[in-house]
Amino acid sequence: MTVYPFEKREFELRLTRTKSAMEKAGLDLLVICDPANMDYLTGYKGWSFYVPQCVLVHGEADIPVWIGRLMDAGAARLSTWLPDEAVVPYPDIYVQSRDRHPMDFVADQIKLRGWNAVRIGLEMDAYYFSGRAADSIRSALPDARFSDCDHLVNWVRNIKSEPEIGLMRQAGQLAKSAMQAAFDTIREGARQCDTVGEIYRAGISGVEEFGGEYTALCPMLPTGEGTATPHITWSDALFKRGEPTILELAGSRLGYHAPIARTLHLGPPPLKLADTAKIVIEGMHAALDAAVPGALAEEVEAEWRAVISRHGLEKESRIGYSIGLGYPPDWGEHTVSFRPGDKTVLRENMTFHCIPGMWLDDWGFEVSTAFQVTAGGAVPIYDFPEELHVRD
Amino acid sequence: MTVYPFEKREFELRLTRTKSAMEKAGLDLLVICDPANMDYLTGYKGWSFYVPQCVLVHGEADIPVWIGRLMDAGAARLSTWLPDEAVVPYPDIYVQSRDRHPMDFVADQIKLRGWNAVRIGLEMDAYYFSGRAADSIRSALPDARFSDCDHLVNWVRNIKSEPEIGLMRQAGQLAKSAMQAAFDTIREGARQCDTVGEIYRAGISGVEEFGGEYTALCPMLPTGEGTATPHITWSDALFKRGEPTILELAGSRLGYHAPIARTLHLGPPPLKLADTAKIVIEGMHAALDAAVPGALAEEVEAEWRAVISRHGLEKESRIGYSIGLGYPPDWGEHTVSFRPGDKTVLRENMTFHCIPGMWLDDWGFEVSTAFQVTAGGAVPIYDFPEELHVRD
Repeated sequence: MTVYPFEKREFELRLTRTKSAMEKAGLDLLVICDPANMDYLTGYKGWSFYVPQCVLVHGEADIPVWIGRLMDAGAARLSTWLPDEAVVPYPDIYVQSRDRHPMDFVADQIKLRGWNAVRIGLEMDAYYFSGRAADSIRSALPDARFSDCDHLVNWVRNIKSEPEIGLMRQAGQLAKSAMQAAFDTIREGARQCDTVGEIYRAGISGVEEFGGEYTALCPMLPTGEGTATPHITWSDALFKRGEPTILELAGSRLGYHAPIARTLHLGPPPLKLADTAKIVIEGMHAALDAAVPGALAEEVEAEWRAVISRHGLEKESRIGYSIGLGYPPDWGEHTVSFRPGDKTVLRENMTFHCIPGMWLDDWGFEVSTAFQVTAGGAVPIYDFPEELHVRD
Repeated sequence: MTVYPFEKREFELRLTRTKSAMEKAGLDLLVICDPANMDYLTGYKGWSFYVPQCVLVHGEADIPVWIGRLMDAGAARLSTWLPDEAVVPYPDIYVQSRDRHPMDFVADQIKLRGWNAVRIGLEMDAYYFSGRAADSIRSALPDARFSDCDHLVNWVRNIKSEPEIGLMRQAGQLAKSAMQAAFDTIREGARQCDTVGEIYRAGISGVEEFGGEYTALCPMLPTGEGTATPHITWSDALFKRGEPTILELAGSRLGYHAPIARTLHLGPPPLKLADTAKIVIEGMHAALDAAVPGALAEEVEAEWRAVISRHGLEKESRIGYSIGLGYPPDWGEHTVSFRPGDKTVLRENMTFHCIPGMWLDDWGFEVSTAFQVTAGGAVPIYDFPEELHVRD
């Protein structure tokens, strides 16, 4: 059980901003299934998102309604600011059943409250809102007008409060400590799994003042030819001399993430890898320099692109995204991306993970910076040497 | 990068069984988005399920098609048995975009192969197949006849091969070692996060012969009043004398899981907790004794229910489910449940997690057994003392 670090006032502000965005979007009711959004609005914590659950936000209701599995109602009562009557459990017969879906129960709750003929926003592309969930609720409420609320709450989450930034900085300490644990254990002949065991121990056990939580992605650890692709995890094979290892991991403090990526090479690196590393780091700093309030997200990427083009490199994928509160399987907020065409205007206290990885034919290089946009520009959330680390 | 422990022959058998189930279900094409099902059919590993990806299985095609993000195509080439031409990447412009969805790309690939006017089975309730994904593919292929394939591949996964059982037994060793790490560190005044750090280290670092992987759920560690609800995770608070702690965790060996739950009390436990523990363990063994080939899943639960009713206890939720290959956020296979109404006939080499937790008003007790159904009955996958553990 976590004691929530926010005042009730913080939740009230979040709700107010959500309602104002709902009004703009022409929505009366939101059905929020993204666990990060549920947590953001209510404080709800618990690894229960493997069954359908949601928070209902009605524009004219003072208090959201949590709906989840009976055995998880206790977690809602312990972790949220909601009064008991706003915690509505569904019975276990709805769980993984061929005959009924929890969204049928949610629809009944919506009808009970007289909200069945209103404009309802669904999180159509949230991880834990399946095709069947969407079909179930839409067919159970024929009088409603449904639309995709298009990450409405994710967008509300974009600008962080001071307490949120504080948690992200604590997460930065955890990330640094986890990365250090990796660097302390990677050597020729050591097992990858032993390094990852130490990464986890360091990130979770944390520091003297506070501990860490599970992160939304597991540590990534491509090594050797595996570095040509970013999302490979570890095995129990040995680290080999003459091979690079990419580490992408995060610290999480009460769900707030600080991700970090670094690359280490055992033995003298090939010249091309060393050169690429320098270009990528130069490009990343050009991007960071451009990340000032008022800049467009695509302009940040353009600065990166200008640097690497000058060196004859190309990169197809985006080089960063907004971060904050995150739940598995992703710590990205699914709103702003640093890529051509993203016209989002950067504002103070937005937070990003700039991660310009290059994956070439048989190896790759990654480095990253988690940062806060301030009046004075991008301020990193942690410091950890960025260069291609070389160990003999 | 993992070297896959199965012969190609194993994948061919899996594909044959899947196609035969497709024929019975009247389906020409499956769009498989569940990462465990993707792995089961192709060997694909990688934490890339946070973007849409799928495997296409056509009844008359010899080889499935992997479709995923460009940067993950390398992981598909490294980890699957598929030839390069069966690995089809989509460009990054499809990622988290308001204008286009990766399922539009998938639909184009289906058209390219002339499969657009066939009977298509979707995994309508899979975690990573969102409402928008379902709407996108359905509207892009107006000539297809869509239906919910209703966990078709999950059901094919029910009966394990010998190599799969071998991996689950290795996972059992990891689970045991992780549980032991917890028991070694829980004491009055110790921090919860330090215990969880050791759980992770033990489960991932593994044993001398092999290491572990990430588990589909994080360790659950409700403590004190938190034990009245099962899915609460840890904090950095201290363990207190006079309070129970429930541990639910797993070992994972190449994605194959062995989950285990145990309960520990610091100081003399209340009589009611000690009594409940005895009843629950007796009930669990009655259930295990009934888990023989030919029994119905609901009969297993009925034996449990008979024991606890005799002692005046009731439990609303199911007491177990099938397990095997698992990806976040759940290690259950979403097929068989031990609960009234589940008429699945148990067969040899099915594997289950029997977990009869009781969550009462202000505390709870959990114990569990992961087991294999054999001709001779249920054989546990690990051994670890079941009683309510008491530490002074």
